[in-house]
Amino acid sequence: MTDSPTRADRFSFGLWTVGWRAVDPFGEATRPALDPVETVHRLAELGAYGVTFHDDDLIPFGSDDAERDRHISRFKQALQDTGLVVPMATTNLFNHPVFRDGGLTSNDRAVRRYALRKIMRNMDLAAELGAQTYVLWGGREGSETDAAKDVAAALDRYREGIDLLAQYSIDQGYGLRLALEPKPNEPRGDIFLPTIGHALAFISTLQHHEIVGLNPEVGHEQMAGLNFVHGIGQALWQGKLFHIDLNGQKGPRYDQDLIFGHGDLLSAFFLVDLLENGGYEGPRHFDYKPLRTEDIDGVWASAAACMRSYLLLRDRAKAFRADPEVQEALAASRVPELAVPTLSSGETWEQLRADRSAYEDFDPEKAAERGYGFARLSQLAFEHAVGAR
Amino acid sequence: MTDSPTRADRFSFGLWTVGWRAVDPFGEATRPALDPVETVHRLAELGAYGVTFHDDDLIPFGSDDAERDRHISRFKQALQDTGLVVPMATTNLFNHPVFRDGGLTSNDRAVRRYALRKIMRNMDLAAELGAQTYVLWGGREGSETDAAKDVAAALDRYREGIDLLAQYSIDQGYGLRLALEPKPNEPRGDIFLPTIGHALAFISTLQHHEIVGLNPEVGHEQMAGLNFVHGIGQALWQGKLFHIDLNGQKGPRYDQDLIFGHGDLLSAFFLVDLLENGGYEGPRHFDYKPLRTEDIDGVWASAAACMRSYLLLRDRAKAFRADPEVQEALAASRVPELAVPTLSSGETWEQLRADRSAYEDFDPEKAAERGYGFARLSQLAFEHAVGAR
Amino acid sequence: MTDSPTRADRFSFGLWTVGWRAVDPFGEATRPALDPVETVHRLAELGAYGVTFHDDDLIPFGSDDAERDRHISRFKQALQDTGLVVPMATTNLFNHPVFRDGGLTSNDRAVRRYALRKIMRNMDLAAELGAQTYVLWGGREGSETDAAKDVAAALDRYREGIDLLAQYSIDQGYGLRLALEPKPNEPRGDIFLPTIGHALAFISTLQHHEIVGLNPEVGHEQMAGLNFVHGIGQALWQGKLFHIDLNGQKGPRYDQDLIFGHGDLLSAFFLVDLLENGGYEGPRHFDYKPLRTEDIDGVWASAAACMRSYLLLRDRAKAFRADPEVQEALAASRVPELAVPTLSSGETWEQLRADRSAYEDFDPEKAAERGYGFARLSQLAFEHAVGAR
Amino acid sequence: MTDSPTRADRFSFGLWTVGWRAVDPFGEATRPALDPVETVHRLAELGAYGVTFHDDDLIPFGSDDAERDRHISRFKQALQDTGLVVPMATTNLFNHPVFRDGGLTSNDRAVRRYALRKIMRNMDLAAELGAQTYVLWGGREGSETDAAKDVAAALDRYREGIDLLAQYSIDQGYGLRLALEPKPNEPRGDIFLPTIGHALAFISTLQHHEIVGLNPEVGHEQMAGLNFVHGIGQALWQGKLFHIDLNGQKGPRYDQDLIFGHGDLLSAFFLVDLLENGGYEGPRHFDYKPLRTEDIDGVWASAAACMRSYLLLRDRAKAFRADPEVQEALAASRVPELAVPTLSSGETWEQLRADRSAYEDFDPEKAAERGYGFARLSQLAFEHAVGAR
Repeated sequence: MTDSPTRADRFSFGLWTVGWRAVDPFGEATRPALDPVETVHRLAELGAYGVTFHDDDLIPFGSDDAERDRHISRFKQALQDTGLVVPMATTNLFNHPVFRDGGLTSNDRAVRRYALRKIMRNMDLAAELGAQTYVLWGGREGSETDAAKDVAAALDRYREGIDLLAQYSIDQGYGLRLALEPKPNEPRGDIFLPTIGHALAFISTLQHHEIVGLNPEVGHEQMAGLNFVHGIGQALWQGKLFHIDLNGQKGPRYDQDLIFGHGDLLSAFFLVDLLENGGYEGPRHFDYKPLRTEDIDGVWASAAACMRSYLLLRDRAKAFRADPEVQEALAASRVPELAVPTLSSGETWEQLRADRSAYEDFDPEKAAERGYGFARLSQLAFEHAVGAR
Repeated sequence: MTDSPTRADRFSFGLWTVGWRAVDPFGEATRPALDPVETVHRLAELGAYGVTFHDDDLIPFGSDDAERDRHISRFKQALQDTGLVVPMATTNLFNHPVFRDGGLTSNDRAVRRYALRKIMRNMDLAAELGAQTYVLWGGREGSETDAAKDVAAALDRYREGIDLLAQYSIDQGYGLRLALEPKPNEPRGDIFLPTIGHALAFISTLQHHEIVGLNPEVGHEQMAGLNFVHGIGQALWQGKLFHIDLNGQKGPRYDQDLIFGHGDLLSAFFLVDLLENGGYEGPRHFDYKPLRTEDIDGVWASAAACMRSYLLLRDRAKAFRADPEVQEALAASRVPELAVPTLSSGETWEQLRADRSAYEDFDPEKAAERGYGFARLSQLAFEHAVGAR
Repeated sequence: MTDSPTRADRFSFGLWTVGWRAVDPFGEATRPALDPVETVHRLAELGAYGVTFHDDDLIPFGSDDAERDRHISRFKQALQDTGLVVPMATTNLFNHPVFRDGGLTSNDRAVRRYALRKIMRNMDLAAELGAQTYVLWGGREGSETDAAKDVAAALDRYREGIDLLAQYSIDQGYGLRLALEPKPNEPRGDIFLPTIGHALAFISTLQHHEIVGLNPEVGHEQMAGLNFVHGIGQALWQGKLFHIDLNGQKGPRYDQDLIFGHGDLLSAFFLVDLLENGGYEGPRHFDYKPLRTEDIDGVWASAAACMRSYLLLRDRAKAFRADPEVQEALAASRVPELAVPTLSSGETWEQLRADRSAYEDFDPEKAAERGYGFARLSQLAFEHAVGAR
Repeated sequence: MTDSPTRADRFSFGLWTVGWRAVDPFGEATRPALDPVETVHRLAELGAYGVTFHDDDLIPFGSDDAERDRHISRFKQALQDTGLVVPMATTNLFNHPVFRDGGLTSNDRAVRRYALRKIMRNMDLAAELGAQTYVLWGGREGSETDAAKDVAAALDRYREGIDLLAQYSIDQGYGLRLALEPKPNEPRGDIFLPTIGHALAFISTLQHHEIVGLNPEVGHEQMAGLNFVHGIGQALWQGKLFHIDLNGQKGPRYDQDLIFGHGDLLSAFFLVDLLENGGYEGPRHFDYKPLRTEDIDGVWASAAACMRSYLLLRDRAKAFRADPEVQEALAASRVPELAVPTLSSGETWEQLRADRSAYEDFDPEKAAERGYGFARLSQLAFEHAVGAR
């Protein structure tokens, strides 16, 4: 029996997810705006522990200071009333026309300066609300023709911007870690830092790289046909999985933002397995969009579904790891042997080269005879995923 | 009038490219084996300056030392007779069944040790032949089910292997730099280090990261739908474009290895533009496969076509950059403005925050009025690509 | 010297193309609305011969009859003033929330009836304006979960709807032929009749299949990684290419609607070659979107670019076909031999079976020796595409 | 408790599936050849009811008549000993170099004639062995450059070939129905009849279209990112699902031929639901490849896994349809309403046009208020798929 979600599960949602009004490239809104205060209350009732936001989700673009204060004050009250926390916040650098060539890498320097200020202002609020992570999705940083951008210049500007923001977090004592969110395309033809890998590589060049990590999204990697579990594995391995966006996607096409689990189910199963066993301690954050076909009941049903899918897969993953036949099959596939260093302790290349058993006396034909048993492992995973064991 | 290829153009080919016998997943060989000595002579005649090889291309797997020496000796003689150089060499860790779960990340430790020795042995030869770059394509490092691999362990082993090989190059004074070649999938369901980004990120964790870079391949990034020019731009920006594999691909599908230019032509145009103007000094290496439909005449015609396509696109790119209307359009699109730092010299976040012109007095509506002129730029590039200006 | 576009070139544009205000899934409009009258005048000045529209492009949804008449009247006047024609019209069944589960295949029967009426009403106008083709793009006909639709029921309803509309055209003497526009996904997760093939197959089941054909769009097929030229070839072969939507796309991702030629350039070259030589007599209709980064100058520049790209490629294709070396290469590749029937005139299977030269005395090893010369052909096409011959 | 497979389940396998020796584009065979007689016995033991084959699977290419008879005789004996049937057979027109430009659409007419004879000869055997379906997969019918083929000529030849073969089946009284198997690419750059749709459309032009249908393969449609369940739905709707190839694929990439269910699990769930409830009566045929990493134990484990996955999903699908909450949710989503004709019985367009309730008095704003409940349906399917209800 799978439990209902509790705060201990650390589920969180963006205001913009359930609040999406379902404008898409071919259609106008199908749902009315949600009041963020109502969203906080509903999410709390459903079992979430946290809520996240873009500045403009909470404070409509162009609000004056008084309006801003009022929006913030109401939101804080709702947090206080419900006990919900704000683990993360982020900036909207994509909706307004001024950002149509990007924020931090716009060809227009004035736009870049404005973008930095807009981010800083919302970092102030994020810190005030107790967030630990500040996400930067550069959805408009990119191009449709390679003539439009000098890539080196763009990356220089991107680095300059992130360096400044990291410095800001440090100097202000905000404790905010920055998390970049990669995406290959849409809304730009090609977006800079298109995958987990490109973003990790970029981070390695930063001045304050230690407080900059990633917020990968399931669907974004799958839009490039990449294995999300492998990507998350590398991010964890490099100590950079600061936050995560859970949703569903059906391979290379537009960004679908489906309910978690409703895309590639087997990948979702292995993802939950990795998150639960791989050392990730952060929120389980859903960045999805309720289908445009749904009314408000469907919105809340879909939010509940995200959490329930995660919990069901968590049960499946636990059972998978606990199954003695799985353990036996893993051993037969020599999966644990991959954790054994290839070199003996302290072994040098000279010693490896002198080891005749490694090469001269190694019989590749003989060694090739034994299979790896991956078909069996794959089937065991399938059977656990469908709850058949 | 586009010139014929000369050695100054630094074109090189792998033995395995023209030598591909056209075995594919559904068909047997359609062409006889090529003698590497003949290949060297033919490539020289066609205007190439270099030839590259996997160990097993030159010395059939399982050759004894005498056979090995004979193959090497004949090859050296051909190099001497033609003046061709060997800028790069690499290891075949994918053909033999022993590598069916990979070389450096096989679950079988004995296979990993054997793989390292096989690489080291061919690095000896590469150095002897004067190569500057040693490529590592981990095509079998990966999985078809996420249950088969602990990603962290796999990356540990990968790092351990590359660290050892870099140490070997340094200690032996070989002067060989290592170049990793990313690929998203095929022949494995998912390959580790699937893109330029993931490989760059991995390199940042290496002990001798300064001598490890990339050998990206056009088609490999395009199999993930990624912008190859952006990827090469990032690799150059991080100082890691050690070598390059030029070919053609028609988007996400099997690895086609078409003639350079015969896939995404506009991307090829911008790639040549970037290689010629972006500071890349290495070989222009073709890693393509002559179509299985071709006989040996078609093989040599396709090799000549690779070089001619490059030269034609080089002419187009030069004309593009030299066109005053292009220069004017780039300025109108504010492309050069992206090279201007966002912050003034020495400007701190405190100063940026105090600059009212950056935020409080900035009018986003007004700033959003002016378009970026990218449609015009894109069309100018198109017209230059088709030789119409 | 490529000529400027003239009416004889039969270029046409949708009101919604240049009139796109650049709302996308992550951003609001960046451009003001265009008056259709202005659009007609500008397109005429640029050299187009035709303009097309969705009902709601011309007459805002919800207009009363007086408003409707006024919009139509102004539009007619503009057509008269400029000489532009209306070769095609279509219905907006995707923008309004009422169509969020589709028009002809909505689960809600009342919506389906309303959709039919909306189409019929605009067919009246299309006929009045002299259109020959009425396009039906079922962008909202589809699903995000297979549970939501019984496919057989959906196709029954789709057929019922198209049958009725074809009957309407016939009975009213409108002379309108219907043209279905396939698309694989976006805005729905999966759209019914996703490709040229599926739509052709569906048409074969229709009551009035003789007046129903296709309006294929370059980018829609390429979103599925399919060869658009092959698709158009099959549509022509089945006599069903009633209309065409020209634009550009960079493989499987969101629907980009780039300027024609700015996606897969080589495919665009072969497409123009086929359209010019394959018997297509209809309009060259551009269904593209000016980049969101552009202001109004960029809008008109991009419209002009679509036509100029077509004309440049038409020149390239003509030169390709006229090149004696191409003709010689085609013959060497035995391309004309494919037009020779496999059976001799009147030959039966009995005769084929009795022909020992066809099998018993046929030497496959010998026959396999000769290559097909496709590498050379491909390179000749490349060189013509880049204007190098 | 899911039962073990029985003959009543009608599971069948190709000799080439378990018999695949694991040659891939980058590697040689990892497994020895399987004797077809052993395969028949093992499949029978595992619970299959049928076995299928390409001519060359059973009778090595180039065998003389005596060898051929011996191979057939041993195979028949094995069938007799085990009770296995041969529901389908097919022709290998892809392995030998002579077919490198295709069989029925090769530019070389002699190859086309040879291909027809090779097919006819194996149809004789198929009929003799009692097969009902003869599959034609035209994997080599296609091109890598659009210059290489006149599409209309290619389709003429394709039609000519299929018409002849259909005539042959009829005249010989074989009772064999032909089933075309679409695939978008690999081993050719682009294959003719790339999807279910294109093949259905082609069939509509055939002389004996009534005995020509489809053999769609899960992975082939998914390589184009298409919804396989929708495709099968259309094939069933057009009465053309003659046979099916079940396997797994992870989206657009090389043809993976994974174990059934190990690709897109949710799609597999809905596929089984449709096959079991949609009127398909044919074999459940697995066309998969045991991973190259496996030894012979892994081969048989993977064959068993295909059947077990199907049975598990069949159980899940049954439970889904039997769940009263699902029934209630389907009704709430108005799924059954899609089966209600849009027009009333006998209603004409005149009557529809006169129905004010359909348009003039229809309030789209009001009608748009009610959501469709697809999120709930999707979640119910997910929960049944993972065995949680």
